[in-house]
Amino acid sequence: MKDQFVTGVDLGGTKIYTAVADLKGRILAEIKAPTEAGKGIDFVLNKVVATVRQVSKNAGLPEIPAYLGIGAPGPLDPQSGFVYQAPNLGWRDIPLKMLLEQALQVNVTVGNDANLAALGEFCFGDYKGTSNLIYITVSTGIGCGLILDGELYQGADYSAGEIGHFTLEPDGLVCSCGNRGCLETIASGTAIARFAKELAQQGKGTGIVKAAGGLIEGITAEAVSRAAASGDQEALGILDKTGRALGLGFSYIVNLLNPSLILLGGGAMKAGPPLWQAINDELKRRVIKSNIKNLKVFPATLGDRSGLFGAIACALQANRV
Amino acid sequence: MKDQFVTGVDLGGTKIYTAVADLKGRILAEIKAPTEAGKGIDFVLNKVVATVRQVSKNAGLPEIPAYLGIGAPGPLDPQSGFVYQAPNLGWRDIPLKMLLEQALQVNVTVGNDANLAALGEFCFGDYKGTSNLIYITVSTGIGCGLILDGELYQGADYSAGEIGHFTLEPDGLVCSCGNRGCLETIASGTAIARFAKELAQQGKGTGIVKAAGGLIEGITAEAVSRAAASGDQEALGILDKTGRALGLGFSYIVNLLNPSLILLGGGAMKAGPPLWQAINDELKRRVIKSNIKNLKVFPATLGDRSGLFGAIACALQANRV
Repeated sequence: MKDQFVTGVDLGGTKIYTAVADLKGRILAEIKAPTEAGKGIDFVLNKVVATVRQVSKNAGLPEIPAYLGIGAPGPLDPQSGFVYQAPNLGWRDIPLKMLLEQALQVNVTVGNDANLAALGEFCFGDYKGTSNLIYITVSTGIGCGLILDGELYQGADYSAGEIGHFTLEPDGLVCSCGNRGCLETIASGTAIARFAKELAQQGKGTGIVKAAGGLIEGITAEAVSRAAASGDQEALGILDKTGRALGLGFSYIVNLLNPSLILLGGGAMKAGPPLWQAINDELKRRVIKSNIKNLKVFPATLGDRSGLFGAIACALQANRV
Repeated sequence: MKDQFVTGVDLGGTKIYTAVADLKGRILAEIKAPTEAGKGIDFVLNKVVATVRQVSKNAGLPEIPAYLGIGAPGPLDPQSGFVYQAPNLGWRDIPLKMLLEQALQVNVTVGNDANLAALGEFCFGDYKGTSNLIYITVSTGIGCGLILDGELYQGADYSAGEIGHFTLEPDGLVCSCGNRGCLETIASGTAIARFAKELAQQGKGTGIVKAAGGLIEGITAEAVSRAAASGDQEALGILDKTGRALGLGFSYIVNLLNPSLILLGGGAMKAGPPLWQAINDELKRRVIKSNIKNLKVFPATLGDRSGLFGAIACALQANRV
């Protein structure tokens, strides 16, 4: 019985998303809970454990499934299940796999969140089975997962997909990684808000400030998107600039890897047509013909559940069930 | 008997390099002949056929091997063996596999030259078996072959590795591909010679002109290297600029793919320490710590025979012998 189901957990900086699914990846029940990372590591781990137990109960299962897959942010080792660093959670060197296996007495598989989102789309999305598929999330930062020739590609040190640190402006702003002009500093949700605040501080961007409820400190990427949607030229300009930077960054991926599909997720991608148009225009400008001609660039098809489905797929794959 | 050996051919714009090897990749005999591409497609194909027959004779074989692998420049389809475009050869839409199979009555496998060079290093080089290995050649243009998780990765349309068209200067010089500021326009052997000629035309670069035999038109990348080796500051400056551009270009590969090894080949890489130092410095500056810490950047270990060994490996793999 318990080996007829799996648990998937998408552990993020703001929410814990937990589901129980059958061996075909059909979800029986799911729970979304705030992470409250500030309350400490034990608090978060106990909350994960509690959601795992609760979601099985909600699904009417007599016991929790024997297999659990969990996606976590930041560099980690999927073999040992060790999370090296997760700034969004305030974690350093946490043996996540071991701790959860002790607490739950089930088989735990750990994966990087962007990698698992790619795997989720590959296994359960509208374009499942697409052999060369890139998943990219643009949100606070920028993450990327790679499906190459039908397999999740993680790199020699499980650190592939660090496209947020592509240098776009060699003499640009200092990034958290120590380099200058990283894509993340120019084109993330954080960067969109920063550009808009800078405008506002110069007495410009009144449409954006209005969309943010009248307060400069209240400006977010969402406020910029709302202003753009109502035709505000300054907001549109920020999204155009952001989209061009993303398109240039993605062009390195497409020239190098010749994928057939890029799926884009994350909060910042909800900004709509002006952002998407700029991305596509820049890709067309920067990618050689043989690599652009069959390329599709679409929104992630599993919405905010790409990572959750990936955690389920990861548990299924690791246990060959 | 004939299935105990394979023939490998590295067909380039300037030379045809042909060898016979046993099933372990040990070369019995090899021939290097000028391509003379200007004499037409039939001439070149006949020459390939002649070298294949001659090299078997030189090795003392009674007949030519049953399997032949051939690397060719430019976009091609390894399944059909169709070469779409090879500007160095003046070829368009040539059914290379079919033509050679008709002429030689053996099983022919076709691959892209940079891909096969990566495969050659992976199968027969000093670092053979390295699962995540990138081969890059810097010569007239820039080519790249990818071994990812122990397999040659070719992309959805067999067009992976187009790093020569990474945009480094969004408003830079127009490239043959139609884009602006491609890596090839800034950092190839061709670009090194162009920078040096521009200096000379301004009445500078006397050390380089001297190394080129006194004639501005005679300036080549090799002449710049020679001048740099004797301490000429302007030549050193050109190599430094070239190395920084290459390092920036390679940083996209390393941040994206987290390989453990980059092997560099091609004529321009013979420029020595000033060029290599600049590449390594820029990589260190631009790549996140987790991806640089275990990375090795070395010269290709098979010299100008990476592609030849790759053609042999390709024939062996395709026929599972």
